[in-house]
Amino acid sequence: MSGRALAGGVTAARGWRAGTAACGIKEATNGEDPVLGSTDRDDLTVVYSERPCDAGGVFTQNKVKSASVVIDQLHLKRNRIQGFVVSSGNANACTGGQGFRDALQMAKVTADHVDLDPDQIIVGTTGVIGRYLPMVQVKAGIEHAARHLAAGADAGARAAAAIMTTDTVPKTAGVEIDLPSGGTVRVGGMCKGSGMIHPNMATMLAFVTTDAAVEGGWVAACVKRIADQSFNQVTVDGDSSTNDSFLIFANGAAQNPPIAHGTADSAALEAAILDVARDLARQIARDGEGATKLIEVRIEGAQDHEQARAAARSVAASNLVKTAVHGGDPNWGRIVCALGYSGSELAIDRLRLTIAGLTVFEHGAGQEVDLHQVRTAFEKPEIEIRADLGLGDGKAEAWGCDLSAEYVHINADYTT
Amino acid sequence: MSGRALAGGVTAARGWRAGTAACGIKEATNGEDPVLGSTDRDDLTVVYSERPCDAGGVFTQNKVKSASVVIDQLHLKRNRIQGFVVSSGNANACTGGQGFRDALQMAKVTADHVDLDPDQIIVGTTGVIGRYLPMVQVKAGIEHAARHLAAGADAGARAAAAIMTTDTVPKTAGVEIDLPSGGTVRVGGMCKGSGMIHPNMATMLAFVTTDAAVEGGWVAACVKRIADQSFNQVTVDGDSSTNDSFLIFANGAAQNPPIAHGTADSAALEAAILDVARDLARQIARDGEGATKLIEVRIEGAQDHEQARAAARSVAASNLVKTAVHGGDPNWGRIVCALGYSGSELAIDRLRLTIAGLTVFEHGAGQEVDLHQVRTAFEKPEIEIRADLGLGDGKAEAWGCDLSAEYVHINADYTT
Repeated sequence: MSGRALAGGVTAARGWRAGTAACGIKEATNGEDPVLGSTDRDDLTVVYSERPCDAGGVFTQNKVKSASVVIDQLHLKRNRIQGFVVSSGNANACTGGQGFRDALQMAKVTADHVDLDPDQIIVGTTGVIGRYLPMVQVKAGIEHAARHLAAGADAGARAAAAIMTTDTVPKTAGVEIDLPSGGTVRVGGMCKGSGMIHPNMATMLAFVTTDAAVEGGWVAACVKRIADQSFNQVTVDGDSSTNDSFLIFANGAAQNPPIAHGTADSAALEAAILDVARDLARQIARDGEGATKLIEVRIEGAQDHEQARAAARSVAASNLVKTAVHGGDPNWGRIVCALGYSGSELAIDRLRLTIAGLTVFEHGAGQEVDLHQVRTAFEKPEIEIRADLGLGDGKAEAWGCDLSAEYVHINADYTT
Repeated sequence: MSGRALAGGVTAARGWRAGTAACGIKEATNGEDPVLGSTDRDDLTVVYSERPCDAGGVFTQNKVKSASVVIDQLHLKRNRIQGFVVSSGNANACTGGQGFRDALQMAKVTADHVDLDPDQIIVGTTGVIGRYLPMVQVKAGIEHAARHLAAGADAGARAAAAIMTTDTVPKTAGVEIDLPSGGTVRVGGMCKGSGMIHPNMATMLAFVTTDAAVEGGWVAACVKRIADQSFNQVTVDGDSSTNDSFLIFANGAAQNPPIAHGTADSAALEAAILDVARDLARQIARDGEGATKLIEVRIEGAQDHEQARAAARSVAASNLVKTAVHGGDPNWGRIVCALGYSGSELAIDRLRLTIAGLTVFEHGAGQEVDLHQVRTAFEKPEIEIRADLGLGDGKAEAWGCDLSAEYVHINADYTT
């Protein structure tokens, strides 16, 4: 990152506060009988901005969308978001009319407690599909979280932990930058996701908050571009979920003159947000279910950026590449194969492929390499696979993880 | 199947003979020093027709194609194929100019031994990518196989065993039907494939032979349609290989009047070939690497057949559905989710989803079912997942397998 790292995730920027609650949503969803406070794991957070935000989001491409996603798209239209509520343990997807009423109720109860209108609240849910939310617990949790809103790094860290499902670690990132025109702005974020992670986003929830002041509509104009270079390039398995959401909120608490697109300040702010988003995206890949290694795929020389992105995702998503990496096996044939079916143009004679800096394929055929060196590289916790397609200026990165037997165990046993 | 089952695979039909050899291709590819006969596992077969065939094929969509695939597409253009040679253990892909010379050499040596021209021979290879074929062994094997051509069921069974790589069982199918206009024709086939199996075909080789007489070009006109309803609907993992090939050869030894498209005989023959192809496709899914269960997905009510095929493949290919099936977990949320990102139109309120005949989702929400009953169904070796999308007349099937920890072990350890 180019700026100064900040702790605190969604409360790293000025004017943001967060509170959490342990509602026992997962247990209640499964028919058990918990009450607020009976579990010690937080599963709900309310995040509040002292000012209304310029906001925008990108959401799952799945034709089956959770009630939260549908509600959020409506709420964003008025562009006066000032807070969000996120719960984990129950996706509130495939829940029919009751699901929509419950999502609206989450927005309304949150709004009531922080003195806003319901359409100023974004709602996020993640967890098991097809069960009704335990609204008694959820409402009590919202009240508790809203009463305990706090600024500072601890509050942001707790919020990040509260949105976890099968994640093994909470995920936050943050940066402070100097604007070219003067003054500083801060950007922070949190996300969750480890199973069902795939391009076009899977059960991944990500929230980036900044205190930058921007012109109305600034966020909406760049949120897709940022997602395409970060969260849309993460893949753990092949599945895109019903709930994926990535949102950016800019509340203006830094009191800089509002930033317009096309300015140096705009470029600096977008780069800072992208830094935070990429950092979070890599954390998701690293925490893939059962993952032991991060796979970073860098494509260059593609015909264009779009083809580069497709090629990078294809390699990072290949079960055969993922198992080869898990086994410490420098099987470049599987990488070439994944490039070949990615949809990107490929001229096998121009392709140059390196693994951890060692050239394994060029001039249309495999190269003699010291297999021991390659194997040593594959045994490290991060593997870089780099392909120069030799066709143009298109570049992209994608991130994935190895496929382990542990992945199978986690997903064969995850509850219904 | 509607006809009478026949044993013998590619030698089930009249006028077809096959021979095999144990060349030690895999061992030689890996730098070991085997000689012909030093391994007892056959890894090469020559299949010969007493007459020239009407033939056609569909091949991998991967931009990286093995030398064999490129050669075969050329040889098919003259449409006077009369035999094929298939070896296992080495894919002859990503092998540059040497690879093309070797594939041509395989065709030429085979042709020489059975007194044909090289362009009358189809070449199939499967195995590790990026190594040169051990041509000394391959040539000796071709000679041995060509000298031992035999008719009858045993020869076809040995041919099917010779093309296996990680397959655990040889795969053959065959049927005899009565033509509406009188007389009988026979159709037989063999295939290999278990890892890297996916729509658009992965390392899957399939050969169907018939003794039907057809008009020139009959096969080419229907081979894609047959593939789309059989091999293109099989998925084990997400990877499409460099070598996938599906070919149909009709030699006319049944001496029926040549069949033209648009006739009742044509419909009967195409249905018989499709029966054989679907039977083989299901055998591939059942033998997926590490698979313990066959997953059969049936879609109906899609807007059209194309969307139905996409929806069926998406469910059969989902890692999360596959692990749920492996775990005996009736997680219909994952199925709905996979339908949602398949690209097929989906109206959640019209969707009806059954697992082993039990309705688990309908009217936009999950249905109360006896979980014990569903779990019992999931524990059987074949799981039928059926979805009625309620939108139109589109129908399709797809076949996959569960994802087990064993899959990971096989692919983490497969040689480079």
